[in-house]
Amino acid sequence: MNVAFTSRTLSLSRPQLFRGIRKVQSSFATCSVLSANRAVVYTSNGDPSQVLSALTFSNLPPPPPNTVNVRFLLSPINPADINVIEGVYPAKPNPNASLSSSGKGSQDEPVFVAGNEGLAEVTNVGDGVTHLQPNDWVIMTRQQAGTWSTGMNVKPQDILKVPRSLNDVEAATITVNPPTAYNMLHDFVQLNEGDWVIQNGANGAVGQVVIQIAAAKGLKTINLIRNRNDIASLTEYLSNLGATHVVTYDELSDKSFRQRVKEWTGGKNIRLGLNCVSGKPTTLMTRLLGQNAHLVSYGAMSKEPLSLPTSLFIFKNLTCHGFWQSRWYDSKSSGEREKLVETLVGLMRAGKLKEPSHEILTIQGSEGDEEASQKIRHAIATLAKGQHGKKILLKMEETF
Amino acid sequence: MNVAFTSRTLSLSRPQLFRGIRKVQSSFATCSVLSANRAVVYTSNGDPSQVLSALTFSNLPPPPPNTVNVRFLLSPINPADINVIEGVYPAKPNPNASLSSSGKGSQDEPVFVAGNEGLAEVTNVGDGVTHLQPNDWVIMTRQQAGTWSTGMNVKPQDILKVPRSLNDVEAATITVNPPTAYNMLHDFVQLNEGDWVIQNGANGAVGQVVIQIAAAKGLKTINLIRNRNDIASLTEYLSNLGATHVVTYDELSDKSFRQRVKEWTGGKNIRLGLNCVSGKPTTLMTRLLGQNAHLVSYGAMSKEPLSLPTSLFIFKNLTCHGFWQSRWYDSKSSGEREKLVETLVGLMRAGKLKEPSHEILTIQGSEGDEEASQKIRHAIATLAKGQHGKKILLKMEETF
Repeated sequence: MNVAFTSRTLSLSRPQLFRGIRKVQSSFATCSVLSANRAVVYTSNGDPSQVLSALTFSNLPPPPPNTVNVRFLLSPINPADINVIEGVYPAKPNPNASLSSSGKGSQDEPVFVAGNEGLAEVTNVGDGVTHLQPNDWVIMTRQQAGTWSTGMNVKPQDILKVPRSLNDVEAATITVNPPTAYNMLHDFVQLNEGDWVIQNGANGAVGQVVIQIAAAKGLKTINLIRNRNDIASLTEYLSNLGATHVVTYDELSDKSFRQRVKEWTGGKNIRLGLNCVSGKPTTLMTRLLGQNAHLVSYGAMSKEPLSLPTSLFIFKNLTCHGFWQSRWYDSKSSGEREKLVETLVGLMRAGKLKEPSHEILTIQGSEGDEEASQKIRHAIATLAKGQHGKKILLKMEETF
Repeated sequence: MNVAFTSRTLSLSRPQLFRGIRKVQSSFATCSVLSANRAVVYTSNGDPSQVLSALTFSNLPPPPPNTVNVRFLLSPINPADINVIEGVYPAKPNPNASLSSSGKGSQDEPVFVAGNEGLAEVTNVGDGVTHLQPNDWVIMTRQQAGTWSTGMNVKPQDILKVPRSLNDVEAATITVNPPTAYNMLHDFVQLNEGDWVIQNGANGAVGQVVIQIAAAKGLKTINLIRNRNDIASLTEYLSNLGATHVVTYDELSDKSFRQRVKEWTGGKNIRLGLNCVSGKPTTLMTRLLGQNAHLVSYGAMSKEPLSLPTSLFIFKNLTCHGFWQSRWYDSKSSGEREKLVETLVGLMRAGKLKEPSHEILTIQGSEGDEEASQKIRHAIATLAKGQHGKKILLKMEETF
């Protein structure tokens, strides 16, 4: 990101930064700039409700050669974003160079822009970039790009064009959950039509995509969820997405459950289990897998370890893997990334993969940074409680 | 196995079988047969010290076409043999057809001959078998063949010839522990000279082979053992086998241990861990593995589950496997089995793989079945305590 920022303001020490930020904001306000950018930033890791602030900064200069400027349209607030801000996630963003540097001779202050995923629109194309045009829709392929922002200057190799025929929610949420689900269903075991998959946390964002992609492939799914007040409507919702069976962890604990599963599958081996919970329910789920099965973990919502009888490995030839979409991106060529996004776009266009249930949090240009900060902190606090159920998408308008 | 057995004797109901067995034995004794066979048998699963009996039976008839008769020279008593007799091991032997059948019209009584591994000598070759001759040494490739016996009739495809240039202990112990160690070092990750492997239960039969084969390949090993009174001499013994470092689980629990490992490896990733313990020490051991590592389990001596933080799978790309040599044999062609045994024979001949420390339990031909039964039960009780340390090899002489 290239931002024209006064070196004077950011030559402050870390504790003074946000007082400085407020000064900048007010100086912009008094300057009557027609519109300006704004980003959600932090200078040190911690509780997002403490460390996050909205920061208005000046417009982007024209893009240098071989880069483009983009304007973000919608940026999801994913659970992992919170962990990144807390500093407990293995993927660390780079400090934003322009916002961090206070200019030559003074001390650097790292400033991070939050957000990993987002849909943006190309606004301005630098010399030498031939395959992108203004108004093109793009998504980020570089991890932790800093998407909770109105605008950014990016390298073409860090973005991927997506068709405008998608709706904006589909496009904004295409880089994290759908590829996670797709790759877990394809990378570990060859599954054919009629084969079975069992997963926990099935009502999560990834779980819902698993249900849909599995259904599109003709796979049968057993979907485990927590018991809750609205269990009937959630079961119906997941069934409508394509879930073959929806069951609670309470039912899983019942001794008769193994027999029910046998009746469902006709005794066919279940060879893929997907786990985002760990702890005891996952031990029970894994016991339902057949010979030569693979258990793929992508989360641990219970905060308990994954604990399995060693005999499952030795005598049933269980293999346990982890999946992390960030590693997938890092290990693949741009051609492979493009191919994956194309596949997902195809599923979305065919109506086989629906946009997640969501709500949009708009930060209007007329709102001050303080007000904007409060809104974002509140949204994250809601998300952190884990009860919200809907994906929150941030829509940041340029300030004026 | 083909055994000429009087149908009268074995037409008894199960609880009467061993009274019948004693009758057979005494009838042989009074018949003054020059020599006869004897096997360690059981009719139902349970505590070996309750259910095992030595059973004398008549000599083998000449081998039918395309089979050979063999005489067992040495048959290990492995820990898994106990589990098979208890009925808690996934590999189940077939009942011995001749000993089980009481002849036409009467009720079948399943009789199992114990023992999975053993060195035998060909005594008699049936028509149509061209690649084996009397006095050839052979080992069993069929699992649970019933090797605690003086003699047996076998199909050539269920045995593999081994050179007589090995000593008999090397040859008798070549089918279970050495292949387990060899395959675990080769089947899961490509290791090159100077790479590191970490294992627990390093003083076990497999662990000792791991140390030697790793050393022969130029691999470095970190070997975990329980603290004990003779720790210094055990450490010296394992070091002499080729162990790079020998450490106790107590040292593993120490916070400084990670730093020590880093110094040993020069920060190089450890990409293979071998586990026969599970439980908490294995969690600690697995945390020492680097990115993209593989943990292979072949036992669970702690009787605790394998319990791992899910983050190791997701963010360090850990993969957990099990290894079971029985499955390896079942999944491989006879050519692949031969090649593996050749490789191990080569290592033994080159002095890179030593015979295990052992003692030989001889059942003399002059001993009665009751006395023989007591000896075997006592040996198994000693082994079951898990404190013996030495492999017990059964040497059963023909009765007279």
